Amino acid sequence: MPPEVRKILDMNAFDPSKDGAEAQASSGLLARRRANFGAASVLFYRRPIEMVRAEGCWMEAADGTRYLDFYNNVPSVGHSHPRVVEAVHRQMARLNTNTRYLNAVTEAYVERFKALLPPALSNVVLSCTGSEANDLALRVAMEATGGDGIVVTETAYHGNGYLTTQVSPSSWREGGPPSRVRTVPAPSVEAYGEDVGGGFAAAVAEAFASLAAAGHGPAALLVDSVFSSDGVFADPPGFLAPAVAAARAAGAVFVADEVQPGFGRTGAGMWGFARHGVEPDMVTTGKPMANGFPMAATATRPELLERFCRRFGYFNTFGGAPVAAAAGSAVLDVIEEEGLIANAARVGARLKAGLEAAGAGDPRVGAVRGAGLFLGLDLVRGGEPDAAFAVRVIDGLRDRGVLIGACGKYGHTLKIRPPLPLSAAEADRFVAAFAEVLAEGR
Amino acid sequence: MPPEVRKILDMNAFDPSKDGAEAQASSGLLARRRANFGAASVLFYRRPIEMVRAEGCWMEAADGTRYLDFYNNVPSVGHSHPRVVEAVHRQMARLNTNTRYLNAVTEAYVERFKALLPPALSNVVLSCTGSEANDLALRVAMEATGGDGIVVTETAYHGNGYLTTQVSPSSWREGGPPSRVRTVPAPSVEAYGEDVGGGFAAAVAEAFASLAAAGHGPAALLVDSVFSSDGVFADPPGFLAPAVAAARAAGAVFVADEVQPGFGRTGAGMWGFARHGVEPDMVTTGKPMANGFPMAATATRPELLERFCRRFGYFNTFGGAPVAAAAGSAVLDVIEEEGLIANAARVGARLKAGLEAAGAGDPRVGAVRGAGLFLGLDLVRGGEPDAAFAVRVIDGLRDRGVLIGACGKYGHTLKIRPPLPLSAAEADRFVAAFAEVLAEGR
Repeated sequence: MPPEVRKILDMNAFDPSKDGAEAQASSGLLARRRANFGAASVLFYRRPIEMVRAEGCWMEAADGTRYLDFYNNVPSVGHSHPRVVEAVHRQMARLNTNTRYLNAVTEAYVERFKALLPPALSNVVLSCTGSEANDLALRVAMEATGGDGIVVTETAYHGNGYLTTQVSPSSWREGGPPSRVRTVPAPSVEAYGEDVGGGFAAAVAEAFASLAAAGHGPAALLVDSVFSSDGVFADPPGFLAPAVAAARAAGAVFVADEVQPGFGRTGAGMWGFARHGVEPDMVTTGKPMANGFPMAATATRPELLERFCRRFGYFNTFGGAPVAAAAGSAVLDVIEEEGLIANAARVGARLKAGLEAAGAGDPRVGAVRGAGLFLGLDLVRGGEPDAAFAVRVIDGLRDRGVLIGACGKYGHTLKIRPPLPLSAAEADRFVAAFAEVLAEGR
Repeated sequence: MPPEVRKILDMNAFDPSKDGAEAQASSGLLARRRANFGAASVLFYRRPIEMVRAEGCWMEAADGTRYLDFYNNVPSVGHSHPRVVEAVHRQMARLNTNTRYLNAVTEAYVERFKALLPPALSNVVLSCTGSEANDLALRVAMEATGGDGIVVTETAYHGNGYLTTQVSPSSWREGGPPSRVRTVPAPSVEAYGEDVGGGFAAAVAEAFASLAAAGHGPAALLVDSVFSSDGVFADPPGFLAPAVAAARAAGAVFVADEVQPGFGRTGAGMWGFARHGVEPDMVTTGKPMANGFPMAATATRPELLERFCRRFGYFNTFGGAPVAAAAGSAVLDVIEEEGLIANAARVGARLKAGLEAAGAGDPRVGAVRGAGLFLGLDLVRGGEPDAAFAVRVIDGLRDRGVLIGACGKYGHTLKIRPPLPLSAAEADRFVAAFAEVLAEGR
């Protein structure tokens, strides 16, 4: 992300040097937050919001304002879903221990989870965060291949740990990638022309060749299969397949990071990779897996995991404890019983059509991309990315009771990602608010 | 850990090649586990136990056997403690979101947590696992010092991630430390003679010098302040101080890993480092922090964190969410209201005396070390470490309804670590079972 874009995006985060006095006057909580979290405090909006409760697709602030949540990818089956709350309560009162003892709840969950994946990925390591899941996947890939060269997209985010930050260009504030990482532009028509799949594959092949030339043998192609922080790229279905083939031809494995698209969000099956007709060597999941209870997974082929375990022990104390498994099971129950994948497809299509209609003829509204309830909408000026306008739209939506963020290399893409039970009326409400903001800014 | 010791310790883990048929006949769950977890399945005991519920210091197996838990360091205020269970339930039904919004529950917890720490450590980053907390602490140390040389003890465990495994010799199955890591023997009389503090400090100074000579400037001395996986070393109080001074003289910062000793276990205040009269530059916590709800923290001085955040963004999606904060607050309530620190001191002293009496005159029982409810008991043969006997004792205790494990470089140290509400009667019960096992093995 160019520094000037970061600067614009930072405009929409709380900045103590500019906003301190005003905000502190309005809420002592903000001053306490700054004293407690220090430089690691990251808050949405220049006037941060204090939340007190949430339910379904709605969050409620301390001042009584209710917000429609179009941001959150964690409480994916809806905030405070009673099914998940009760499952956690029941199990937590009974047994919550580590997996060095057997327990039936954990095995039942893992079997249910595996049944949703390609059969070859028959081993699952449960952990607590997507960062842990990706960290392990990369290490398994390095042991399996003997290389340490990793290719990711140029605005990717794959985690907050030492190794996962190395593969998360969106977190680098200074400096370029470490020597074992190469970045390639996300698969867009802008970057690669009409043959997105072919162009992306060629870039991946070239990146692995460049790594090899620098002494970093191929280890992994790691991508978020809906390219969320890159700006949301989902079409045409199948465009990932040539890049996966190129990575394998180079000797790398393919890791699908399903932390964002996984668990039904794209409205076409459980996983983002399925849309592209590819079978990953590893799949990682996180955020929505247990609707906010910290839970993540790395699914892999047994022989890859075996090679890793020969060199290192791996045990995750909290990972796969029965309470996490109970929460994860409740999430799968809700997805099934409430028909959330079909809902994501249906309401997502309505939302996309509504946004396209709202932006029709408006030169500030560019492409609307995505699948199911994961959409990206570009805001432009003279055809060029307009992050400053994105910030104004985000603020305007907030004033109309809608929470939303931006993504993409140029920070000009609205990241549209509501909980999966979003109703048609809630989708329409968002479209109306967006149209109002456009009209106001004219 | 020497390979022959690992072999002996592995004797007490389930081994599919030897134990498969028998165990699978007795429980289909084990076969399912192996199919699901693959090579990453780690199970206690050659005949693993299926647990179904737990309460206080007790766990109950599927076959109805009740076990006194002397192993577990996570449900530190007692399994399924109703106070924690209800706090999680209440908060989860109300609001569980990330810290990009303000919420009063999280700030209240952080302030309570900070009040337990040296005032200089006024910034806290909340995450989900001790591995995440240590990973961040090491990266903050590297940014703050400009070096990447890290010194740890030779059988340490600090986490399961890429970077934390590099500083966890107890997880290395093949090969030595990476070039930026040096290991030193844990602070014992065996390793350093009577002047444990001076000897340990000299070893730390030498390790930093050796790192510097190899081009790795000093970054951090990272120790578990009760040296649990090294074999439990707590005495004499103060022995850590010279090593901390040596590390600082070399230019490194001192990180106290309180994942094991923290939250009152040593019976003398909240933290293991306090016993030694030192003030760490950073403190990390994990396992017992929320009694099993995944929660961890890195506490640091603001200027250290600031330097890190200049280069990298850090945000932890699940870390510090209000449900974690509610669980953490309930744990602090219970520690206070049930007087668990005083209980750890009182019952721990009784337990230690009981074990010393049980072992008196028995040449197989060596030193009993530790503080509060964290004890280590060496099992020896002709004065030499006897890991094989440790395994037999662990099995014998299991047959008498007690769960326990081993630690130490030679795997011959019983790691005695029950929940903090342990009663005098439960302590006596353990001592009696241990005496029986000794008598039987005679």
